[in-house]
Amino acid sequence: MSDEHMSAAGPLDTTRTPHARLRTLPLDGVTLGRGFWSLRQATNREASLQHGYRMLEQAGNFHNFRLVTGQAQGDYRGRLFMDENVYKWLEAVAYALAASPDAALRVMADNAIGLIAAAQQPDGYLNTYFTVVEPQQRWADLDHGHELYCAGHLFQAAIAFHRALGDARLLNIATRLADHIASVFGPDKRDGAPGHPEIEMALVELYRETGERRYLDLAKFFIDRRGQGKMRGLGWYGPEYHQDRVPIRTASIMEGHAVRALYLMAGVTDLYLETGEQALFDALMRLWHDMTHGKLHVTGGAGARYEGESFGDPYELPNDQCYCETCAAIASVMWNWRLLLATGEARFADVMEQALYNGFLSGPALDGTHFFYINPLLSRGGYARAEWYSVACCPPNIMRTLASIGQYLATTDAGGVQLHLYHQARVADSARGIALDIETQYPWQGAVKVLVKETDGASWTLSLRIPAWCRDATIRVNGAPVSVSAEAGSYATITRAWQAGDIVELELPMPVRLLEAHPLIDTTRDAVAIQRGPVLYCLEQADHDFDLMAAQIDPSASLQAAWEGDLLGGVMIVTAPGYLLDTGAWGGQVYRPLESGKELPRQSVSLRAVPYHVWGNRGANAMRVWIPRAGR
Amino acid sequence: MSDEHMSAAGPLDTTRTPHARLRTLPLDGVTLGRGFWSLRQATNREASLQHGYRMLEQAGNFHNFRLVTGQAQGDYRGRLFMDENVYKWLEAVAYALAASPDAALRVMADNAIGLIAAAQQPDGYLNTYFTVVEPQQRWADLDHGHELYCAGHLFQAAIAFHRALGDARLLNIATRLADHIASVFGPDKRDGAPGHPEIEMALVELYRETGERRYLDLAKFFIDRRGQGKMRGLGWYGPEYHQDRVPIRTASIMEGHAVRALYLMAGVTDLYLETGEQALFDALMRLWHDMTHGKLHVTGGAGARYEGESFGDPYELPNDQCYCETCAAIASVMWNWRLLLATGEARFADVMEQALYNGFLSGPALDGTHFFYINPLLSRGGYARAEWYSVACCPPNIMRTLASIGQYLATTDAGGVQLHLYHQARVADSARGIALDIETQYPWQGAVKVLVKETDGASWTLSLRIPAWCRDATIRVNGAPVSVSAEAGSYATITRAWQAGDIVELELPMPVRLLEAHPLIDTTRDAVAIQRGPVLYCLEQADHDFDLMAAQIDPSASLQAAWEGDLLGGVMIVTAPGYLLDTGAWGGQVYRPLESGKELPRQSVSLRAVPYHVWGNRGANAMRVWIPRAGR
Repeated sequence: MSDEHMSAAGPLDTTRTPHARLRTLPLDGVTLGRGFWSLRQATNREASLQHGYRMLEQAGNFHNFRLVTGQAQGDYRGRLFMDENVYKWLEAVAYALAASPDAALRVMADNAIGLIAAAQQPDGYLNTYFTVVEPQQRWADLDHGHELYCAGHLFQAAIAFHRALGDARLLNIATRLADHIASVFGPDKRDGAPGHPEIEMALVELYRETGERRYLDLAKFFIDRRGQGKMRGLGWYGPEYHQDRVPIRTASIMEGHAVRALYLMAGVTDLYLETGEQALFDALMRLWHDMTHGKLHVTGGAGARYEGESFGDPYELPNDQCYCETCAAIASVMWNWRLLLATGEARFADVMEQALYNGFLSGPALDGTHFFYINPLLSRGGYARAEWYSVACCPPNIMRTLASIGQYLATTDAGGVQLHLYHQARVADSARGIALDIETQYPWQGAVKVLVKETDGASWTLSLRIPAWCRDATIRVNGAPVSVSAEAGSYATITRAWQAGDIVELELPMPVRLLEAHPLIDTTRDAVAIQRGPVLYCLEQADHDFDLMAAQIDPSASLQAAWEGDLLGGVMIVTAPGYLLDTGAWGGQVYRPLESGKELPRQSVSLRAVPYHVWGNRGANAMRVWIPRAGR
Repeated sequence: MSDEHMSAAGPLDTTRTPHARLRTLPLDGVTLGRGFWSLRQATNREASLQHGYRMLEQAGNFHNFRLVTGQAQGDYRGRLFMDENVYKWLEAVAYALAASPDAALRVMADNAIGLIAAAQQPDGYLNTYFTVVEPQQRWADLDHGHELYCAGHLFQAAIAFHRALGDARLLNIATRLADHIASVFGPDKRDGAPGHPEIEMALVELYRETGERRYLDLAKFFIDRRGQGKMRGLGWYGPEYHQDRVPIRTASIMEGHAVRALYLMAGVTDLYLETGEQALFDALMRLWHDMTHGKLHVTGGAGARYEGESFGDPYELPNDQCYCETCAAIASVMWNWRLLLATGEARFADVMEQALYNGFLSGPALDGTHFFYINPLLSRGGYARAEWYSVACCPPNIMRTLASIGQYLATTDAGGVQLHLYHQARVADSARGIALDIETQYPWQGAVKVLVKETDGASWTLSLRIPAWCRDATIRVNGAPVSVSAEAGSYATITRAWQAGDIVELELPMPVRLLEAHPLIDTTRDAVAIQRGPVLYCLEQADHDFDLMAAQIDPSASLQAAWEGDLLGGVMIVTAPGYLLDTGAWGGQVYRPLESGKELPRQSVSLRAVPYHVWGNRGANAMRVWIPRAGR
């Protein structure tokens, strides 16, 4: 390792990006202390990454590389996009190794990198499926072939190894492949765009990492050429499945496959960050508005429909048959993070936080070796996390997100430091000589203490995010209240000539509260959800000896939060008074003439809610987020 | 045509079936007069069947046969089960031609039959896909190859041509194929069962038509061998996708692909009708109980989930993202009809009627050339019927069902005649010298007049179905009230020495009523549906100038029905007072802290409901069956 890479950027680097209002911190600019995310990171490092390596062996991903290199014989195994699983796993390993050396993990990574290097073709091409199975079909099926998608994930893994570990092996492979792709596609070459976006943001990052403008140009080319209405959708779908109905600059509807749509948005935002093109920004704002007005579940989950794994119509947000793919939640985080960097506006951080603590974090099991692909808001009991999937996009995507979660805590700009997520951590802007210690039990407690450890005596601004869910936030500096605006959904800013030893105390009150959903949503009628801080709750059958589907909550009663250190790795639970309906009077009927005014008999029960993100860790069992309101 | 076939059975023949309590009438035993179904039959005959022929040409179904016969060159077109579309279309043509000769249609049928005859292999094998594309893979993939499924549909078409028209050409082809299959599969031969059930009921009918016991034995073999847990499901599914998790005699859960499940149930019921095996009957009753306790939509639709086109958990009945495939509604009709024949119990006729007037009849457009594959109960506007589908199971299934709808009107038994569905018709049991004229405007009006036209003077019983939805039915004979039991969901029976000229007047009161759904269903909370007689209603955007999703109905107000002869081919509409919520106070929020007691402002509006089965005939537009209740 060289010293140079030690202050290299994290998974996204906007340190020299012209149209970023906020600059990402170097990878070593955030060091997590013991807390909510670092506990998950430990499991990720100690269980998930090893498990992933075993699964990549077992599912045939490595076997496919060995077929190319001649180290194995037989048939190609699995779907044609298997390579990307390896790349996302490697990206996760890079960030894990940077945080904490691990000799065994390094050997695994070296094995994988060796296979990848050996599988690259003399002309730079790299894809095991199209090398082994259909060598004549290279780039023949951009809509469904996933070659550019896999390439994008290789680039991101390569950037991770270079930035986090100063290891250029994958980067050399990546640039050879990128140069090969640039020799095939471009304004005077072959036209086209990838059926599954991903390479766009990877190419922009490759430009940031290498300084080679042609990678940015190629990203722009793929984005510009999309939207000709030519791509063949899956199932009932037309070009909207691939976000190919209209060009991005005229698009206004989030539609089609949710992961594809959100990866594309992240790539377009990356392009905007570099070019500052207003038409792109305007499109992004239209599309973000569309998504956040009835196309996100209260978990932050995206993709209402199983059909095409796609966005639904506005306010089409089913509880049980929603898709809410873990990868879509991750993609939403990636997009909103880029919009936050572009604008500095808290609304993007709010959407990001909603997904991170809920619809993303429900993906991995506490054991680190089981994963949800789909994240429903209601289960009648038959649904459980699996060790792996035949389409295994989610597990390694979870791993790379957890391994790099620290990136989202803080940024800098010319005026100072911004804190976006709160966690026990050291945050350092070494270029400016600023170091802060954050002490908090967030998201379980709303008290956040910021200790100024180093500063150069100049005046600068500390920006503290006040989440949209938080009313009556207060701030003290060195014990004294400060009268700065601390509105929900904004950044409170304190500008002063900070001194080492200064202490800022932010208090984000976290009463348990009930949420209601917009009346245009059909599935949440007369129901409420429980939230505390950024954490959404659910009822799980494991905590109840009656049918959850017959339960109601008393919306007027008070809700109690209590810490249970031995439950599910330590969680805050919520208890609430409710009722159990006696549906016996219905007999065997499913539909009957309306009997107005006849209420079913009910008995008082106690409801016990656990965070949504830990549901399903006590075996497959029923769960519901939205709880019918009693006695309206 | 011989005289013999003129009194041959309809699509199902239980005239000599030992364990049938009710006997089906000969094909000419029911002649429909002008009315609800015959209007649809006319469109079916005049538009749909011609359209179907064009589509079979356009989609490549006939082309695939020509590839086998050498009349065409090129690639096989479409999915591997394309042949069945031709067979179901032919079955429909046979019943249409029997009711009303049509020279042009006969030429089309002859062309198709000629192709099929020429495509049959010397050994009797017949399947264009596995003859043209994968000749080495005959019977290699029973789970997904659909060869036995296609064969079953050929058998049914062949039986239809033989019974309805005395035309044995297809029957000769069918028996050669059946004999070939029997030479491959059986107790001392190859083990296995078809991934998609269908051949079971077809083989039982082939036995009934030919008297050849080996076809019944083969049906029993396929049913007996199912349930080994070996079939590979689609997507996330295991063997339950194919109803292969457990043997039928121990099954108790309706699960997996809904059409597969229901076709299997129909076949098992056919087997029971012939063998009287109690274990089969017990299984059928368990499974029927399971299905009717929370796995059927109020439309009679079956298959709650897009995923696997499958049954959901009990009470999992989404409105917008349900599947409710048209073929599943048809399959439910087929199964319930067989259970009715086996038992004579009205509950099976009720389920059949619910599906026929609602979830089945929503399939075809009024123009006869567009069809729903999926039948949701809520659409936000983007969903429309298509001319055809790449998986085109539904359109010809609709055609054969409409062409043979008369079969469901009446049956006989040793004691008399039973009327199940009411329609303008002549019903004749020529073997017993009984003829009845039915006069009614059902389902729009509840008055049914039965005129005894012919009878032999002996005493017999007339059984009149009193639908489960009907309270206070009354019966008069020759003008005088009769005091027989006429409970909802039963058969009223009148036994006497009927004389020609006797008149029975059945009055089935049809007030408009509101239905509520079981509290365990999450998606219908505090909502009601409108029903009148057997006809379910919906709100359609075309009739309203405000957002249907913001509408509520006043459950205490009176509902008015009115005939609109110029609307949608003539329908009874229902008007109801309701409210339109002003959701402006929500601003851009989708979720917010509960504001108990704060009701949204609303204005009075008039709601206008149309029958669910005609929705979507005025362009793609929003629709909802379940309407939130105001002011609970």
